[in-house]
Amino acid sequence: MTRYAVLGTGAVGAWYGARLSRAGHDVHFLCRSDFDHVRTQGLLVESPDGDIHLPHAQAYCDVADMPRCDVALVAWKTTSNGALGPALHAVADDTTTVVMLQNGLGNEAAALAASDREPGQVVAGLSFICSHKIGPGHVRHLDYGAVTIAGGGTDRGERLAADLREAGIPVTAVEAEAEPARWRKLVWNVPYNGLCVLLDTTTDALMADDGTRAEVEALMHEVRAAAASRGITIPAEFAHAMLTDTDRMQSYTPSTKLDYDRGARMEVDAIFGAPVRAARIGGVDVPRMALLYRSLLFLDSRSRDG
Amino acid sequence: MTRYAVLGTGAVGAWYGARLSRAGHDVHFLCRSDFDHVRTQGLLVESPDGDIHLPHAQAYCDVADMPRCDVALVAWKTTSNGALGPALHAVADDTTTVVMLQNGLGNEAAALAASDREPGQVVAGLSFICSHKIGPGHVRHLDYGAVTIAGGGTDRGERLAADLREAGIPVTAVEAEAEPARWRKLVWNVPYNGLCVLLDTTTDALMADDGTRAEVEALMHEVRAAAASRGITIPAEFAHAMLTDTDRMQSYTPSTKLDYDRGARMEVDAIFGAPVRAARIGGVDVPRMALLYRSLLFLDSRSRDG
Repeated sequence: MTRYAVLGTGAVGAWYGARLSRAGHDVHFLCRSDFDHVRTQGLLVESPDGDIHLPHAQAYCDVADMPRCDVALVAWKTTSNGALGPALHAVADDTTTVVMLQNGLGNEAAALAASDREPGQVVAGLSFICSHKIGPGHVRHLDYGAVTIAGGGTDRGERLAADLREAGIPVTAVEAEAEPARWRKLVWNVPYNGLCVLLDTTTDALMADDGTRAEVEALMHEVRAAAASRGITIPAEFAHAMLTDTDRMQSYTPSTKLDYDRGARMEVDAIFGAPVRAARIGGVDVPRMALLYRSLLFLDSRSRDG
Repeated sequence: MTRYAVLGTGAVGAWYGARLSRAGHDVHFLCRSDFDHVRTQGLLVESPDGDIHLPHAQAYCDVADMPRCDVALVAWKTTSNGALGPALHAVADDTTTVVMLQNGLGNEAAALAASDREPGQVVAGLSFICSHKIGPGHVRHLDYGAVTIAGGGTDRGERLAADLREAGIPVTAVEAEAEPARWRKLVWNVPYNGLCVLLDTTTDALMADDGTRAEVEALMHEVRAAAASRGITIPAEFAHAMLTDTDRMQSYTPSTKLDYDRGARMEVDAIFGAPVRAARIGGVDVPRMALLYRSLLFLDSRSRDG
């Protein structure tokens, strides 16, 4: 039995935490806004793979009340990463593995900068999941759910992967380095998350229009070029495979678009700002990404003013 | 006295036509959707410079009923340029000057392709005007109104300019060639018309945000680069002056945004498509313009489907 902290019990955190809990692990959920509901009603995760109801989920509204854990799953949005310092101080020590289950770039560095953990302790969890929070303590999982574990070498990753697999969470890969995996995920997130917000649409509509489809592809190649400036090679075939995979997907609304629609802060910095800055440092021109980044900053700022 | 045809009696055409009519010229207005109203109630142009009411405006709903004119002012949107052939057949002969009072690129070529006029007969009228149609036969002029006449050499342009000036319409310049003037106007129209639609905003908000302001400027430089590939030099100082001028303007909603908001077709091809194609032919990369162009095509297509 492993002791888990789930930092952020939303669409992603609840799904992972519920499966780990069902598998017999000792899971502690930071719930914040849903605390009262989860404490009295428990946690409900609906899924085509079978619903999980945890009537006695161990819920916390203050991270300071949480115990030290073997693994900390950071599953809140990157926009909450300002809270990493006190959270990791409470739940992590030198033996804890910190898993950044987030989109974007630079999340592991943020965790290291905010805590006194060692680089090898912080790993990336790249989650490919379609799930939504539909009410307090209530998450609906629609499809997917596999995770790639990357960073901190492979030994720590393999131990984590074994737990996850036993809990019914597919692990697609365990990789020694986080950054290449994060850049590959950006090949999808930058065009689809960005253009779906800007054009108020869904992935299938972007793919059905020759013009926006060409822009999706051009953005993918800008992400590849930015990664290359960091010494990370992503083959063109990888981008083509992403296009083909997205063609096969049902109509999908990326997380950034869901955030925008409900008036929440978008993950503009982690998904768009960080790669644009990396490209600038690398001396690579990424004009489409820059236009997208600044447009989303503008929309995000207005959304929060309004 | 000169005989004028105003082809398209909207926010631009009504203003020019009303001033020319007040100055004693013989002005014939193609009104289409407003025909019944204008025939019975006349035409009303409100302006801080003085209102003009033409109770007996010579209105037509069918261009075939219009007389041959000395000057044809083409003031409908470029999206109606498919109607140029029959219109110019009706109102123009070898002595007529055809003035394309429109935004974008390639409008003079469209008029030549649709008619048997000679190149020197078709000139560009680049109108800097802030006016809106607020009801049938009813236009409100808010500010500006100067026009640059360009193309067809300068003699024909000077004769036209003399008429316009006598009618109280400022003529800022008469130039021998249309294309350089059209590209200079695109330096403003591409960034502001495009980004105001995409970000659902106004010029002042784009200028107040450092990020979108930087994107406006980057788009201006892409337009300059595209023009340069056609042998047309627009100095960087010109773009900087446009930024400074826009800083001094009040909050402004560009025409493309007004079109989009009222569910009308946007002038995507003339303002965005034509310069993107010109850049491609010129071998110049214009990634921001391409993203803007394809995004607007997507929005325009969806707007007309819905």
